[in-house]
Amino acid sequence: MKILIDAMGGDNSPDEIIKGCVQTIDELESEIILIGDEKIINEKVREFYEKENITEVNSKLSIKNASEVISNHDSPTEAIKRKKDSSMVVGFKMLKEGEGDVLISAGSTGAFMVGGLLLVGRIKGIDRPALCPILPSHSGKGFMLIDSGANTNCRPMNLVQFAQMGEVYMKNVMHVENPVVGLLNNGAEEGKGNELAKETFTRLSENETVNFYGNIEGREIFDDLVDVVVTDGFTGNIALKTIEGMGSMITKLLKEELMRTPWSKFLAMLIKPYLKNFKKRMDYSEYGGALLLGIKKPMVKCHGSANAKIVKFTLHQAENFAKNNVVESIEKIISKEDMKKNIDN
Amino acid sequence: MKILIDAMGGDNSPDEIIKGCVQTIDELESEIILIGDEKIINEKVREFYEKENITEVNSKLSIKNASEVISNHDSPTEAIKRKKDSSMVVGFKMLKEGEGDVLISAGSTGAFMVGGLLLVGRIKGIDRPALCPILPSHSGKGFMLIDSGANTNCRPMNLVQFAQMGEVYMKNVMHVENPVVGLLNNGAEEGKGNELAKETFTRLSENETVNFYGNIEGREIFDDLVDVVVTDGFTGNIALKTIEGMGSMITKLLKEELMRTPWSKFLAMLIKPYLKNFKKRMDYSEYGGALLLGIKKPMVKCHGSANAKIVKFTLHQAENFAKNNVVESIEKIISKEDMKKNIDN
Repeated sequence: MKILIDAMGGDNSPDEIIKGCVQTIDELESEIILIGDEKIINEKVREFYEKENITEVNSKLSIKNASEVISNHDSPTEAIKRKKDSSMVVGFKMLKEGEGDVLISAGSTGAFMVGGLLLVGRIKGIDRPALCPILPSHSGKGFMLIDSGANTNCRPMNLVQFAQMGEVYMKNVMHVENPVVGLLNNGAEEGKGNELAKETFTRLSENETVNFYGNIEGREIFDDLVDVVVTDGFTGNIALKTIEGMGSMITKLLKEELMRTPWSKFLAMLIKPYLKNFKKRMDYSEYGGALLLGIKKPMVKCHGSANAKIVKFTLHQAENFAKNNVVESIEKIISKEDMKKNIDN
Repeated sequence: MKILIDAMGGDNSPDEIIKGCVQTIDELESEIILIGDEKIINEKVREFYEKENITEVNSKLSIKNASEVISNHDSPTEAIKRKKDSSMVVGFKMLKEGEGDVLISAGSTGAFMVGGLLLVGRIKGIDRPALCPILPSHSGKGFMLIDSGANTNCRPMNLVQFAQMGEVYMKNVMHVENPVVGLLNNGAEEGKGNELAKETFTRLSENETVNFYGNIEGREIFDDLVDVVVTDGFTGNIALKTIEGMGSMITKLLKEELMRTPWSKFLAMLIKPYLKNFKKRMDYSEYGGALLLGIKKPMVKCHGSANAKIVKFTLHQAENFAKNNVVESIEKIISKEDMKKNIDN
């Protein structure tokens, strides 16, 4: 397997991206191809190796030169069309041509999705690819939120395909034997929700390829009742970011309270290992990046603020994504019959 | 002021409701009228007073008999029409007739909203009343989430009115000088969002009565950037319940980690006061119940699982709601001109 990684995308690039790759290459079966400014990457790689006192660069780590960078300020569609020698666009082309098996980027989410659609292409029969992070659940098993923001406006057929794709990933990559799908809704009972949710409920109930739990409320998503939580990209994005916002508030509040007095600081120091484990269990970056499902080749969006540690998790995740035939299984499930059935709405 | 409270609604009724009232009556300027089975309430009130060794029941505490109870299993509309002598329906009638200034219930949310609409009535010009809790923010100031679930399908005019009503409440009751309104969206930039969010953005930008911040993402809502977060009831419900779910997972995980070894248990005991303060700061029940704004009289939905402590917060909140002319101020802001401007969409 060859993992392509955009070395120039994200808030902490290229340093943290490169550091993450250097630190992880020995753990992987795959090769890594770092895409971006060859000179800079070369220097940084050497620097990190020198720090570790290793003289010879791992031969599984190579560089593909790309002279431009797509930033978060660029219009995604414009950038994909114009910046033909950007690290991301070079990555898309290599992925398409089979010069790599999976593409990772911590750069612009918009450009990543547009590039996936336009330059790599959708799986035949898939109407809308979706972006889906794995989030922490109480047991530590985790669950997939699909779609977390690729599609602001969805039709019921899109949500059905999200369910199907989510199931495939959880089965093939996360090795969940019979993944269960829940529909994110404002009530548990049948008949709840907006028009999209109501119609999707009916279709998921009737769909034989989906192991459907029924509606699931926001307060239950962490309870390990389902493996895949299906929703449209608008709602999913708000749920995801609310989780992020709350996580960050909680971390701040906990810190503030524990730093309140010299005595509490002392106790906090003693209790730190336990709090660290607590933080680890609620930290979803440990589950890797967000998958872009529905594209002909595996693609993983790494968090924009990713550090070397998160890059490490994402590399492992990308390797598993690439080697577990997710695309092939999705292609199989979205058969021509399903296509016909769904296409009229 | 007279506070009407449904003594029979909620998971812990009537005990915790009555206990909350008995424990709070001395702190309030208002009278409390407990609505429900007279015999049971009388007994319970006496019981709680005896426990405190008080022989004379506070004369500000009285009882209004109601023989029926609306449960969560009842269809809201049916229940409101049929159970005419239920504690909730009796409450609606008393509120409408001016026999009380504000109504609290921990019972069925659906019945509470339907009863408010049908038996108490909307403020003239308000298209859709909304349910809105005050949620904890980082500074402790809190923010209002409106609508958190009363209206699954909304039009832009509804969200504009939610913004107006939210501002009035935050100003009159929470004494925020110039409350700022944010539109919950899947991106900060103008032009983001589904059709509803886009059109609402334009209208809020143009509306002179609203102090509009712009779009706000889920990850920023706890950051004290805005006082009112406006959204439709479907999205708001999912955001609210996701917050609840995450809060509950975090409490569980923290407990599990701190109870892991005898040593961590010991440390946890010492650090408890600080953790208690942390919990208090992220516990939104301390902000009271969810307000039902847009109804002709003040109404507060108390959490279904409310205990005496939460009832206490809700009683104080209800008193403040009733005495700060919220309904009158909303009536003023929703002038006939606004009505005309908004009514065509």
